[in-house]
Amino acid sequence: MSRSAPGLDRVLRFLRCRSPGIWFDQAAEELPLLLIDHANCEKKAAGTALSLLYRYVDRPELLFRMSRLAREELRHFEQVHALIRARGIDYVHVTPSRYAASLMARVRRSEPFRLVDTLLVGAVVEARSCERFAGLVDVVPAALADLYAGLLASEARHFEHYLDLARRYAPEPVEEKLDELLRADAELCTAPDREFRFHSGPVER
Amino acid sequence: MSRSAPGLDRVLRFLRCRSPGIWFDQAAEELPLLLIDHANCEKKAAGTALSLLYRYVDRPELLFRMSRLAREELRHFEQVHALIRARGIDYVHVTPSRYAASLMARVRRSEPFRLVDTLLVGAVVEARSCERFAGLVDVVPAALADLYAGLLASEARHFEHYLDLARRYAPEPVEEKLDELLRADAELCTAPDREFRFHSGPVER
Repeated sequence: MSRSAPGLDRVLRFLRCRSPGIWFDQAAEELPLLLIDHANCEKKAAGTALSLLYRYVDRPELLFRMSRLAREELRHFEQVHALIRARGIDYVHVTPSRYAASLMARVRRSEPFRLVDTLLVGAVVEARSCERFAGLVDVVPAALADLYAGLLASEARHFEHYLDLARRYAPEPVEEKLDELLRADAELCTAPDREFRFHSGPVER
Repeated sequence: MSRSAPGLDRVLRFLRCRSPGIWFDQAAEELPLLLIDHANCEKKAAGTALSLLYRYVDRPELLFRMSRLAREELRHFEQVHALIRARGIDYVHVTPSRYAASLMARVRRSEPFRLVDTLLVGAVVEARSCERFAGLVDVVPAALADLYAGLLASEARHFEHYLDLARRYAPEPVEEKLDELLRADAELCTAPDREFRFHSGPVER
């Protein structure tokens, strides 16, 4: 991993495992798909933050953080989209990976756990994204490496913000649910997957 | 109307009528409700723009414009939310007005009309918002007047962007549908309404 960023070491201590090397090899072979799915992930991250703005109007700190986070994710979307255009890649519809849906399925339905678990999922997703950005810097062409190096620090901050908010609103320690989500994340990122995506496991061929 | 802004004159020529004076009188009496519903409208505008980012990935100009527009609406949300907090207003859930749903009900279901009509609705809503901001400047306290004066120019630009995009993607002139939407907007903004909202008609008492 050739580049570092403030917060990356905390991200790596937080996650239960690194992504397998083979996933990065596959990423280098699947650049158009990587960029399209990444663009979709940035939109999805903005959409999740926006959905919290609708649901929890009585939590001022959450509204403040999530609105700013949504704006930042949209700016990342614009950066990735600019690269998609610059490289002449057709922005086709791509189905989402199993990753986010599998994590969200572990969110409890009753409040305040629904909010807390959603924020914990946000922390895990941002941390994993950060880990993948750091590894991608070494395997992608220069223009993409610059993008991913630039996004590293931002996602590391988002991970901390999500975690802080989850602890703030949790009526009890979050460690048990966090452990469940981190184990799920590690499994999803390392177990063989059907299709290559930004948050997929390595694809069996 | 004490303040002007680039584009406001085009907005006023575009709309079929001014808002009734009585609506502005009621706004001055309903400041907490005005601010809460306004904050919700900014979120809704960001959400609409985001939904277009999901649906029309093959329209680069649309993606560029809508992502930036969503970011700007979220920044406005943060500004309005800051005022809500500063004034000690409880940010409670408030039902949306009849306005946006009534306009969206006129959007055709088949493409490309679904896209074109959604963009035309966006143009009408932004233009009406701009007209109301301009009038509100005269009737609200100084801190709010500054906010609304600042938002004026931005919403006037958004109205033009929506209209440009609608014309770009329309397979035929948009005037007929636009006329229908502008007539609906004029009716919704002037006919007696049940509840005061940012885009409501005047409330009968």
